[in-house]
Amino acid sequence: MRIAVDGMGGDNAPGVLVEGAIQAQREFGFEIVLVGDRNLIENELSKHKPYPKDKIVIHHASEVVGMDEAPASSIRKKKDSSVNVAARLLKERAVDALVTAGNTGAAVCATTLYLGLLKGIERPGIAVIIPTIQGLSLLIDVGANIAPSPSHLLQYGIMGDIYCRFILNRPRPKIGLLNIGVEESKGTEFMKETHKLFSRSQLNFVGNVEGHDLFTGKIDVVVCDGVVGNVALKVSESLAEAIGDLLRRELKKSLLTKIGAFLSKSAFRALREEVDYAEYGGAPLLGVDGICIIGHGSSSSKAIKNAIRVAGDFVNLKINQHIAETIQKAKYKY
Amino acid sequence: MRIAVDGMGGDNAPGVLVEGAIQAQREFGFEIVLVGDRNLIENELSKHKPYPKDKIVIHHASEVVGMDEAPASSIRKKKDSSVNVAARLLKERAVDALVTAGNTGAAVCATTLYLGLLKGIERPGIAVIIPTIQGLSLLIDVGANIAPSPSHLLQYGIMGDIYCRFILNRPRPKIGLLNIGVEESKGTEFMKETHKLFSRSQLNFVGNVEGHDLFTGKIDVVVCDGVVGNVALKVSESLAEAIGDLLRRELKKSLLTKIGAFLSKSAFRALREEVDYAEYGGAPLLGVDGICIIGHGSSSSKAIKNAIRVAGDFVNLKINQHIAETIQKAKYKY
Repeated sequence: MRIAVDGMGGDNAPGVLVEGAIQAQREFGFEIVLVGDRNLIENELSKHKPYPKDKIVIHHASEVVGMDEAPASSIRKKKDSSVNVAARLLKERAVDALVTAGNTGAAVCATTLYLGLLKGIERPGIAVIIPTIQGLSLLIDVGANIAPSPSHLLQYGIMGDIYCRFILNRPRPKIGLLNIGVEESKGTEFMKETHKLFSRSQLNFVGNVEGHDLFTGKIDVVVCDGVVGNVALKVSESLAEAIGDLLRRELKKSLLTKIGAFLSKSAFRALREEVDYAEYGGAPLLGVDGICIIGHGSSSSKAIKNAIRVAGDFVNLKINQHIAETIQKAKYKY
Repeated sequence: MRIAVDGMGGDNAPGVLVEGAIQAQREFGFEIVLVGDRNLIENELSKHKPYPKDKIVIHHASEVVGMDEAPASSIRKKKDSSVNVAARLLKERAVDALVTAGNTGAAVCATTLYLGLLKGIERPGIAVIIPTIQGLSLLIDVGANIAPSPSHLLQYGIMGDIYCRFILNRPRPKIGLLNIGVEESKGTEFMKETHKLFSRSQLNFVGNVEGHDLFTGKIDVVVCDGVVGNVALKVSESLAEAIGDLLRRELKKSLLTKIGAFLSKSAFRALREEVDYAEYGGAPLLGVDGICIIGHGSSSSKAIKNAIRVAGDFVNLKINQHIAETIQKAKYKY
């Protein structure tokens, strides 16, 4: 198993990427190809000596797409950017998968451009794992496709179903459509049309769900357009942080609450781990003809390590093959 | 000050409505008109004897719009439903404002039908107060208008600005447009067009903001379409609950953490109050020609009491007059 890691993508590149890559190599035994500026990456690697030099190699790329750059034009102009080079390595099957914590739009553009889409797939979508009060759920799409058609959403449902069955081991995932009410008459014309498509499909479609349902864990795969999903994801992340900040502030207000907080710290730690996105690795870009896992720009080394683990799972479990086969059959059945 | 309360709307009607009305009457001295089934409401009132009978009166309405009924058709068919009757009382100026915790769509339809919109306003929008890590922010629209045009969103910005200036006492509120990235090139064509309109306006427009920014308190008024706002609001509410549930579960796991939780309970209580939607009253339906405050279906009596307080503030501070005047001027300036 060889995984390319975009060494230059993310808020803390290349430091955390190199650190996460070394952790992943040690834990999972994968070979890692760090793609990016050779000098900068070598410098980071030298901080972690000794590391297995035959298992962690550098593939030089002279350019970087910045986090705020316009994705499509950067990908066209910066041919030798780390994400482009990594996507080409994947295209040439020099690696089995790609992990990046860089500009999300650039990753979508580069992989779509160099790898193309799986046969029958109309648009790629990004799926994230959501920790809920009872286990994990999937939210798809969180920003790859901001103006989808109903059939794109149906394909996200199909891909989410496969993700859920093979990676989360749920035999018959419940699929819901994120809307502003549960009745099938709710929402925009786009949503009503999408509801119809899902109702006719062979998915275990439970109908419309609301924002309230996202963290209950009752729905395995929540499908929505990229704008709604992106806002829902970012609102959730920032609210979790805000509640943490407010609680810390309150706990510091008296000696009693400080002692209480000290005694309770194992509970706080357990909660933090439960809701920590870093635990669940990156978000797969589903639909492209190659495994690409996208991490948060602010990913920690643990998040990178876990994204590499997820990439390995996707390769081992042949997720893309399952998607391609299902979509081919779906042409007639869904 | 006379406020009509839809006594039959909400998950716990008429009990919590009556209770909230009595609390509000005692605390603020307003006269309250409870609209709904006379027998049911009298029965609830009898549990709270003595209450000031000259200050809390019942106005009978024989029908109820259920929480899950289709709004538009219910409002047309159930002429004598509590929300319709209350809207007509407001139309006749028999009351100064209306508070409901019933079917949100029905409240939007009934008030729009009977009261009409303020001159120059194209669509009503629902604004909610969001507690953040530094003070309160406004989110508009959270579900009145699921397929807005850019000019509707601009008007929401203008109305949110007025809400923020007069009710939250901020001289120059920062207005942001909820999008999937901060650059003005981000988002759908609809969002780009909306961004242009805001840029040309006289509002203190800070540009696009992301889901991450909602709970930072850096933006005073966050504007979005009703689908995105509804999902963001409901996701936030359910995540806050989920984190509470998970933390309680963790704190119960050992004697040490139980003791810690006991010592820290004042901090948990303070946090709960800080993020408790019930503290901030209901959400005004901005743009209709009359004050209508919409509460959560699951409102507690405290939430109803606070919604009645907000209704009083809107009347006293002549918010609708300010909106109408600003929109009239805006025709040329915005």
